Amino acid sequence: MLKRVLIANRGEIALRIIRACKELGIETVAVYSTADKESLHVAFADEAICIGPHTASDSYLNIKNIIAAAEVADVDGIHPGYGFLAENADFAKICEDCGFKFIGPKSEHIELMGNKAKAKETMKKYGVPVVPGSEGAVADPDEALKIAKEIGFPVIIKASAGGGGKGMRVAHNEMSFLTQFETAKNESEKAFGCGDVYIEKYIESPRHIEIQVFGDSKGNAVHFFERECSIQRRHQKLIEEAPSPFLTERMRYKMGEISVNAVKNLGYENAGTIEYIVDSSGNFYFMEMNTRIQVEHPVTEMITGVDLVKLQLLVASGYEIPYKQEDIKINGHAIECRINAEDPDNFMPSPGLINAYYAPGGFGVRVDSAAYQEYTVLPYYDSMIAKLIVHSESRKGAISKMKVALNEFIIEGVKTTIPLHLKIMDHYKFIEGDVSTDFLEKYFK
Amino acid sequence: MLKRVLIANRGEIALRIIRACKELGIETVAVYSTADKESLHVAFADEAICIGPHTASDSYLNIKNIIAAAEVADVDGIHPGYGFLAENADFAKICEDCGFKFIGPKSEHIELMGNKAKAKETMKKYGVPVVPGSEGAVADPDEALKIAKEIGFPVIIKASAGGGGKGMRVAHNEMSFLTQFETAKNESEKAFGCGDVYIEKYIESPRHIEIQVFGDSKGNAVHFFERECSIQRRHQKLIEEAPSPFLTERMRYKMGEISVNAVKNLGYENAGTIEYIVDSSGNFYFMEMNTRIQVEHPVTEMITGVDLVKLQLLVASGYEIPYKQEDIKINGHAIECRINAEDPDNFMPSPGLINAYYAPGGFGVRVDSAAYQEYTVLPYYDSMIAKLIVHSESRKGAISKMKVALNEFIIEGVKTTIPLHLKIMDHYKFIEGDVSTDFLEKYFK
Repeated sequence: MLKRVLIANRGEIALRIIRACKELGIETVAVYSTADKESLHVAFADEAICIGPHTASDSYLNIKNIIAAAEVADVDGIHPGYGFLAENADFAKICEDCGFKFIGPKSEHIELMGNKAKAKETMKKYGVPVVPGSEGAVADPDEALKIAKEIGFPVIIKASAGGGGKGMRVAHNEMSFLTQFETAKNESEKAFGCGDVYIEKYIESPRHIEIQVFGDSKGNAVHFFERECSIQRRHQKLIEEAPSPFLTERMRYKMGEISVNAVKNLGYENAGTIEYIVDSSGNFYFMEMNTRIQVEHPVTEMITGVDLVKLQLLVASGYEIPYKQEDIKINGHAIECRINAEDPDNFMPSPGLINAYYAPGGFGVRVDSAAYQEYTVLPYYDSMIAKLIVHSESRKGAISKMKVALNEFIIEGVKTTIPLHLKIMDHYKFIEGDVSTDFLEKYFK
Repeated sequence: MLKRVLIANRGEIALRIIRACKELGIETVAVYSTADKESLHVAFADEAICIGPHTASDSYLNIKNIIAAAEVADVDGIHPGYGFLAENADFAKICEDCGFKFIGPKSEHIELMGNKAKAKETMKKYGVPVVPGSEGAVADPDEALKIAKEIGFPVIIKASAGGGGKGMRVAHNEMSFLTQFETAKNESEKAFGCGDVYIEKYIESPRHIEIQVFGDSKGNAVHFFERECSIQRRHQKLIEEAPSPFLTERMRYKMGEISVNAVKNLGYENAGTIEYIVDSSGNFYFMEMNTRIQVEHPVTEMITGVDLVKLQLLVASGYEIPYKQEDIKINGHAIECRINAEDPDNFMPSPGLINAYYAPGGFGVRVDSAAYQEYTVLPYYDSMIAKLIVHSESRKGAISKMKVALNEFIIEGVKTTIPLHLKIMDHYKFIEGDVSTDFLEKYFK
């Protein structure tokens, strides 16, 4: 078993990891920037080492300083949390080379999944559905139409050299296809000096549903079901829940099976998340794989009863996953709201002193936060200051509980996303579970 | 369904009830003494009515004022919480007579269980084991010895007029019985002017184990398993857990069956607790029945997933209990530590201003508290300021989690029982689950 772990992160996830370590009897070493000396992760760890000034590139992203701290503190493992260096394959490799167990997957898997094209190719090879499309550019209109018909409408025509929506056209049927194809080509030619376009299935108002997977060094792999993360703002998740209100038992089973199969084929170790876009008919397509613990892992913990961070530490220590797939069951429903120190109207960061703070409590209410009364939200890092998670026997019960808890949550001195979360909890589409990644654009303009 | 409920209580239990009401869409009316105007139950309720000065007898125990508040606020139900008027049969009767649904059992059951002799007699009639003993006083030594042998040693000889340990003698075997019998008689004669003594089985170092029961108005009854509440200080519970580390499946089943059977025979409605003393051989004897929600109800909620306060509101609204006995299952292990504003060495109250407060959070950690930073712990009421509850997959896991959470809990400005709880969590006897009601006397003198 690991004896002493350095946590290369800050904020609530550093606290989360410290708690898991302490429960397992593992000593903890925090690292911090000069701006973070009053932070709770510094106070709660057994030892804390300053690794640089407030700028993240000089501290939390400073591999040299972190490795030096690990050496000074004589740890045997390093937990990267999420963000910062969590998906930096070089960092994982350096940890391994320096003899520190990196608490996450092997560096080769981080690297593989960091390359989106290679990741897609690999996943396709292992039987994971990917968004159907042409293999590379298509020049001939008739050939293009043939491919589009094979894929099925609507399709999106994208400039190979594209970006920023230029040279990107959606065709909803055969009739409009040829016009859109020519338009895209011309736009692309004008914008990028290259008329190459390719064709992909267009997923309208998709859902974002992800599968929590886990592998160990003995080749075992399991999944912990799905999380519905469709409520997003500019690809930033705001609200996550488990289970998804959309999946049927059959789809749940299928997505789980396919995901676990990929993990086994990869020989993937530790926690991972396979993200899918899901269309309204229930077709799902691989989007990407996150090779770390996710911000939203608590909703999975609430419905399965499994501590995923403890499991990361166990698996990194060489233990087998102590669960068989059939032992992992869904119990009730969980929702997480990310409370950001932001103006809820325009999402502008709102750093500053929290001069009044009261976190809600009671049955089924969980708060993961490093904030406290008189804590200053720093402008240098992520604006998320708390995760409010509720668990109830039903989705309806969870929404009710979330509203009660959001209304109780007192954070004064900075603006927060709490008012927006309350509005979403009251929106009929959310209540019906009828959500998609463009939910906020559609209903909260 | 009840529409508007007055909560005739304060502190964490008032908050607990407000939360349950809000989740069910029931409007809430708080009552408060002048000293409590800054309390959270006042802030979080939909309406709050002052019912008198700080002295409890003039406010929280003032039936006239509470009924007047209920009339002014036009509520349809009154929840008494625990303590104060929760087990006052007159109050329940007055609520009923005034047309307010008392959220608890019928007044006749409160009255019956308030009379300890009648309660014992009734429970015995319904097949609940009671401590074996002589029927009234015994004068003849030979007759007394015969009874003692029937009961089985050790026995306790108690003065009928007794109290305070006077005229009370324990006989561990036949040899010492007659001497102890005569001594008890003489002591009793001297102390009370009456030599009448009776004989009861003496339970050495008993455990306190209680069964959470529930009945509804349609005659259904279920239990939610047991709570082990043996860690006490002068009959005041300090730590509770569920399930009991002592009970076998067979005992658990038997105690549950017997308790539910009594509830059905009584025609008892709403939440209740049947408390037993349990000897080291596993014999259990009725002690008393509490006709209210208990302070320690959260540990039961954590292992069963059932919200007991919501269930109180549903049952009081006329709904049937929505669970069959076989659907109620134990999941993991929960422990509650009562955090009192007391000197942990001598249990003297320590009221005053809380100038720093941070409640622990994370997976499996629940805090039920009405305290916050800058809250003043009042000297007029109970000294309990927070309940820290943890839930984990095993008892060992729960103890680890409790230690981490206790260490994180910051309450400055008043003394608290946190250091004592930490010592208990580290005590080998507690870790082994080898506890009894004299645990603190034995190991923490």
